[in-house]
Amino acid sequence: MNPEIINQLQAIVGSNYIFTDVATRTDYGHDETEDLNFPPQVVVKPATTEEVAQILKISNTYKIPTVPIGGRTGLSGGALAIYGGIAISMERFNKILEVDEKNLQVTTEPGVITQVLREAVAEKGLFYPVDPSSMGSCFIGGNIAENSGGARALKYGVTKDYVLNLEVVLPTGDIIWTGANTLKNSTGYNLTQLLVGSEGTLGIVTKIVLKLLPQNKHNVLLLVPFYKAEQACEAVSAIFRAGITPSALEFMERDAIDWTLRYIDGVNIEIKENIAAHLLIEVDGNYPEILMQEAEQILNVVEQFEIDEVLFADTEEQKNALWKMRRAVGEAVKSNSVYKEEDTVVPRYELPKLLHGIKAIGKKYGFHSVCYGHAGDGNLHVNIIKGEMSDANWNTEVPKGIREIFELTVQLKGTLSGEHGIGLVQKNYMDIAFSKVHLELMERIKAIFDPNNVLNPGKIFPDGE
Amino acid sequence: MNPEIINQLQAIVGSNYIFTDVATRTDYGHDETEDLNFPPQVVVKPATTEEVAQILKISNTYKIPTVPIGGRTGLSGGALAIYGGIAISMERFNKILEVDEKNLQVTTEPGVITQVLREAVAEKGLFYPVDPSSMGSCFIGGNIAENSGGARALKYGVTKDYVLNLEVVLPTGDIIWTGANTLKNSTGYNLTQLLVGSEGTLGIVTKIVLKLLPQNKHNVLLLVPFYKAEQACEAVSAIFRAGITPSALEFMERDAIDWTLRYIDGVNIEIKENIAAHLLIEVDGNYPEILMQEAEQILNVVEQFEIDEVLFADTEEQKNALWKMRRAVGEAVKSNSVYKEEDTVVPRYELPKLLHGIKAIGKKYGFHSVCYGHAGDGNLHVNIIKGEMSDANWNTEVPKGIREIFELTVQLKGTLSGEHGIGLVQKNYMDIAFSKVHLELMERIKAIFDPNNVLNPGKIFPDGE
Repeated sequence: MNPEIINQLQAIVGSNYIFTDVATRTDYGHDETEDLNFPPQVVVKPATTEEVAQILKISNTYKIPTVPIGGRTGLSGGALAIYGGIAISMERFNKILEVDEKNLQVTTEPGVITQVLREAVAEKGLFYPVDPSSMGSCFIGGNIAENSGGARALKYGVTKDYVLNLEVVLPTGDIIWTGANTLKNSTGYNLTQLLVGSEGTLGIVTKIVLKLLPQNKHNVLLLVPFYKAEQACEAVSAIFRAGITPSALEFMERDAIDWTLRYIDGVNIEIKENIAAHLLIEVDGNYPEILMQEAEQILNVVEQFEIDEVLFADTEEQKNALWKMRRAVGEAVKSNSVYKEEDTVVPRYELPKLLHGIKAIGKKYGFHSVCYGHAGDGNLHVNIIKGEMSDANWNTEVPKGIREIFELTVQLKGTLSGEHGIGLVQKNYMDIAFSKVHLELMERIKAIFDPNNVLNPGKIFPDGE
Repeated sequence: MNPEIINQLQAIVGSNYIFTDVATRTDYGHDETEDLNFPPQVVVKPATTEEVAQILKISNTYKIPTVPIGGRTGLSGGALAIYGGIAISMERFNKILEVDEKNLQVTTEPGVITQVLREAVAEKGLFYPVDPSSMGSCFIGGNIAENSGGARALKYGVTKDYVLNLEVVLPTGDIIWTGANTLKNSTGYNLTQLLVGSEGTLGIVTKIVLKLLPQNKHNVLLLVPFYKAEQACEAVSAIFRAGITPSALEFMERDAIDWTLRYIDGVNIEIKENIAAHLLIEVDGNYPEILMQEAEQILNVVEQFEIDEVLFADTEEQKNALWKMRRAVGEAVKSNSVYKEEDTVVPRYELPKLLHGIKAIGKKYGFHSVCYGHAGDGNLHVNIIKGEMSDANWNTEVPKGIREIFELTVQLKGTLSGEHGIGLVQKNYMDIAFSKVHLELMERIKAIFDPNNVLNPGKIFPDGE
């Protein structure tokens, strides 16, 4: 990169917050997507909206690819600097600006870790429900970029359902607030929701206003072992049809739990030989007696399937252990082999068909998969395991299989990604979900916001589009 | 209009579904916005997506302004054919296509009346919570166009929170589905949410997939009379801060109730002399004993203010009477005088400041206002009453006052419209809420969808923009 540009960037952020050394660039060259690494040419760490705006003006003047970077926990490569250029790390935007107890809102900077935000509002009796598995290290800004979900989406919704208003630096360096701090808003086009899930391609979010709920006081957690994985999937919609809305309903195939129990310490669960899958089911609310009623109703439903003994977690310690296990599944599975993860999502009743189809496709193309995820909202993470597969098959057969899996999700009225985003690694499957007209519409929206295509280029849209 | 165009339109919809007579054109020239009437040159009533697409292709070929029309209950003039042209009435899109009990979803055409949809899903034990006051005659498609709210938004959200997927005919005649039938979706830009609230300017919705909830079995309704209107507003956020989320929390100034009780039959409520305002408060859920607990907690909160005796509605008949009264307020107030209605919205804690400010602005410009609305979500309908005011003052002073009211809402971190939309009558106030850059961004989005500006032109954007 031209030293003159480096000088200009340094003048904006100060010499302590600009990095061109290989170690830093490599460090900011990855997220949690497979083993990919694309080092930017320079990493800058601005602290104010105005600094971000000035950086983007430079990006535009010199037409330099520029990528906003959050907690680097992404699973679709959304924050990878695939063309080098400037990486803008948002880590210094780490202040919670106001917990507004009067209006049940929080105003925060985007570099706050999601769990830190959740705990800060919980201290005031308030609840921010969105809990991606990576919440201990992901940024709330990254959650907005990818429209993150997590385990509580089936009852409480996803990131988009909590975002009221965003301060955004547009790729041109202009600054806008997208909306208002209100629950209702019918004033012009909803740019707030257009920005949420746009994977850092339309603007860089610098302030966020989120809606909060009153904190629920109690919850009950059950772990239900099934002899047949497809029956576990069938039980999911049976629970909803019984009139219960759990606060979490997680599915884990046998391998996912086995591998996780080997990977983490401190969780003592014995899994019998013949168990094929588990559901982890939580209900929450303010009245313990009602939660017990609901737990019993759930037991009545799952007992209609072939299940083993249900584990009823009745201490905080047991609950934490089960959630620790569930949250570690992703890392555990990935630590085991080279892998590719797909973030499929379908209407929840279609889960058994999806699982069945994935296994059949795996058989056809010779790959093993480990599936787990947020079954209550139809969001199944499919980890395709390389294991002993040859590189040749991995590179030629697996992409065909992935394409068939996505074709199946779309047939089932689902789509490619429930909560990870399209980013880099799914972009060449977008034609499965969208017509040419539809993709062009999205690309033209991108061009309006970013006429020089400097902000996070090469993401979302298929190559050659 | 060129007879050749009429012939082409007739070939599409059939001769029974095209109208050029004055009576029909006048009938389709209004909604419920003030006394405005803008007759289109021709009214067509297509029945299929393909017919809508063919009509829009004609609109594009001949560059004819074209307006989609729903239940004609709009309050911002969104469906008025201000440049004449073609009106596309969606009334034949009146089928509920599938109530999907397995996935808690409904697929419907847009010409279904909102209440009909609510009742159809309720029969299957399911709940569509969005209940605009006009729900007995408005169309679900119109609700999507304006992102309608209603009385239950404070607990259950607004239209946008239930829309999963839309079949849309773009102004060019292309047809797309915007999303997927899933609760989670991180796949490309969220065009679903861009369409919701776009007031029929970006596309014509022809099929709708909505999320549903399990039906709540019980509710409790309270009418609380306050001696001071601002204290009623203060009580609103006090209730939330006590940890209760009511399912409705409605505010009515004295005049609103008085005029309504004169306007409707069959509601017997006596209002004492010195009552300035009422709150109508509902809690809902599945467990009557818990609702009674919550009602008591609410009583504890409101008793900290200067209130008169609380009416506890304990029969269905009483509840229906109170809701009938509340829903008739809009019409009753408007039947009384020439008026202008503004749909202000602020964070709920700011309501007392908003009400105080509106009254002060009214004093300054010499107008009387009657305020009522969905106080639980900060959405206050301000009816400015012409009464004895001179035409000259009405035309010159009132717009200045309205501008000041909107400036106040924006200062309070609110915005211009909570649920009615901008449409025609608020468009020249958009500069208060949005910068030039922001408005231009929205206008460029409009131009991408609608390069010839044929679909519902002259709405949302200020004159001269």
